[in-house]
Amino acid sequence: MTESIYSQKKVLITGGLGFIGSNLAIRLVDLGAKVTLVDSLIPQYGGNLWNIEPIKDRVKVNISDVRDEHSMKYLVDGQDFLFNLAGQTSHIDSMEDPGTDLEINAVAQLKILEACRHYNPQIKLVFASTRQIYGKPISIPVDESHPLRPVDVNGINKMAGEQYHLVYNQVYGIRSSILRLTNTYGPRMRVKDARQTFLGIWIRRIIEGNPITIYGDGSQLRDFNYVDDVVDALMLAAATDKTNGQIYNLGAADTLSLTDTAKLLVDLNQSGQYEYIPFPENRKAIDIGDYSGNYSKIKQELGWQPRISLEEGLKRTLSFYQTNYPHYW
Amino acid sequence: MTESIYSQKKVLITGGLGFIGSNLAIRLVDLGAKVTLVDSLIPQYGGNLWNIEPIKDRVKVNISDVRDEHSMKYLVDGQDFLFNLAGQTSHIDSMEDPGTDLEINAVAQLKILEACRHYNPQIKLVFASTRQIYGKPISIPVDESHPLRPVDVNGINKMAGEQYHLVYNQVYGIRSSILRLTNTYGPRMRVKDARQTFLGIWIRRIIEGNPITIYGDGSQLRDFNYVDDVVDALMLAAATDKTNGQIYNLGAADTLSLTDTAKLLVDLNQSGQYEYIPFPENRKAIDIGDYSGNYSKIKQELGWQPRISLEEGLKRTLSFYQTNYPHYW
Repeated sequence: MTESIYSQKKVLITGGLGFIGSNLAIRLVDLGAKVTLVDSLIPQYGGNLWNIEPIKDRVKVNISDVRDEHSMKYLVDGQDFLFNLAGQTSHIDSMEDPGTDLEINAVAQLKILEACRHYNPQIKLVFASTRQIYGKPISIPVDESHPLRPVDVNGINKMAGEQYHLVYNQVYGIRSSILRLTNTYGPRMRVKDARQTFLGIWIRRIIEGNPITIYGDGSQLRDFNYVDDVVDALMLAAATDKTNGQIYNLGAADTLSLTDTAKLLVDLNQSGQYEYIPFPENRKAIDIGDYSGNYSKIKQELGWQPRISLEEGLKRTLSFYQTNYPHYW
Repeated sequence: MTESIYSQKKVLITGGLGFIGSNLAIRLVDLGAKVTLVDSLIPQYGGNLWNIEPIKDRVKVNISDVRDEHSMKYLVDGQDFLFNLAGQTSHIDSMEDPGTDLEINAVAQLKILEACRHYNPQIKLVFASTRQIYGKPISIPVDESHPLRPVDVNGINKMAGEQYHLVYNQVYGIRSSILRLTNTYGPRMRVKDARQTFLGIWIRRIIEGNPITIYGDGSQLRDFNYVDDVVDALMLAAATDKTNGQIYNLGAADTLSLTDTAKLLVDLNQSGQYEYIPFPENRKAIDIGDYSGNYSKIKQELGWQPRISLEEGLKRTLSFYQTNYPHYW
């Protein structure tokens, strides 16, 4: 397996105290990588020091913002790999404060790439993009050639952030690979509210004994990846040069309606309720309808496929938050 | 014709002292519109006070930068139409100073739309986008459904700027229409250098008696629109609500190689030479190969088609610069 290549390698993870970043860091540290985490710890985002409790003495933590170009110049220097995961993830926030979303998801990405070009052109990057940039799918499952027509400011800025990586790969040879993530869930996600994923707030509410709230009629289809599977994909994408300049969808074997997802969660929790409420206006306006991703390309080229079923993943997630909830809300 | 609707209407044009903006302003002023031009007059860009010589006493000129959000808030207030033409146009400059390109072509666009949302939600916008966002065409002629995969930073930022308009139209009802322009040429273009269009520097060199320089073998295909035809398209797009949220390619009936374009220009000028030089590295890296646009959609929906042949347009252009060159280089 490609995991051995990370031993003794210098790895920088932006958004490293966040959901996916911290899970990736834990894996990499256990493989002997020298990991530096950069995170802004802005309260509305995903960073949480508790996320790295298992490795806190074996990792460097640098609290700074990806918008701080001086900090980033210093941090990228000398790294072998950069997992570029920092981002503003809330669609609603991107409409209410579009300028901040633009700064983080586009301006900062360009500055990071400039820093790599000038100070570390040998680095290998993997950028966490999102299915949001496809907008409302023409048909599902969506493959990488689906038109890009984002429905909100967040989607536009993530699209720009992604495309900078491709241009810097093509023009300057800054080796970059793109993963377009779908709904990722698991331990260490933000569950305080719905800013990172609706599954976050669902987990919190069900553990607190409150009903899960479903917008609309619950028929919308979604696919879900357990975070360990996403960590696999990130590590596979970074490990080979054949991913340079390539875009890969992630996805799952099963596609579920929101109602079926809620039912499964209640079932696994052995208690709980869900209720339907009308779509809030501001969410309806940017809703993408049904989505599922076609992940044939990454399966064929890198041998990736999700290993953890939704049932198993949700069980582990519930178990994590039943124990750790005091650190998350 | 729709021209009558502009009488007494309040019209703001960003980039209004530039090439297309000034030609549009001259037309609108003659139709009785109350026109305000906003332009930064940054020396590297297209603004030139001589461009509005024919209407200088019948137009308001406001020198400010679209990045100046306070200025823009004041200027959009009360306008009926906004022709949003300001942009950084140089592909090479966008690679050398990507941050400035991003500020003008994306950040400022978002601020303009926010200003419209908060201070003038009734305004109608037309945004000048570019064929550059398609990148290297899969096949030509390119229609509006061609994938967006820009090859340089300018293309990415213009894509973001365009997409903000679509999202603000969809989510907030800020009526916006997009034109994706191809090579526009004609009187009042920047001819000092190749920052706006290669035809600019060709015109200057041929008038100065210097050889035209063609990169590569000259076989690359391009389509050209005379500026008056582009002004027609802008005015048609602004005049009806059926263009809201719609994207339209411009294009031309004929597609020419660079060599044939140079030959035609020499022919019309009755003297001149052209020569081939190898593609400079920095241009080769972001070259898009052959391009021509399919403009069936705007032809069908708005009845637009180019009226001025390349031969006639180049004649008028040569004549304009033979007289006015002291104001352009």
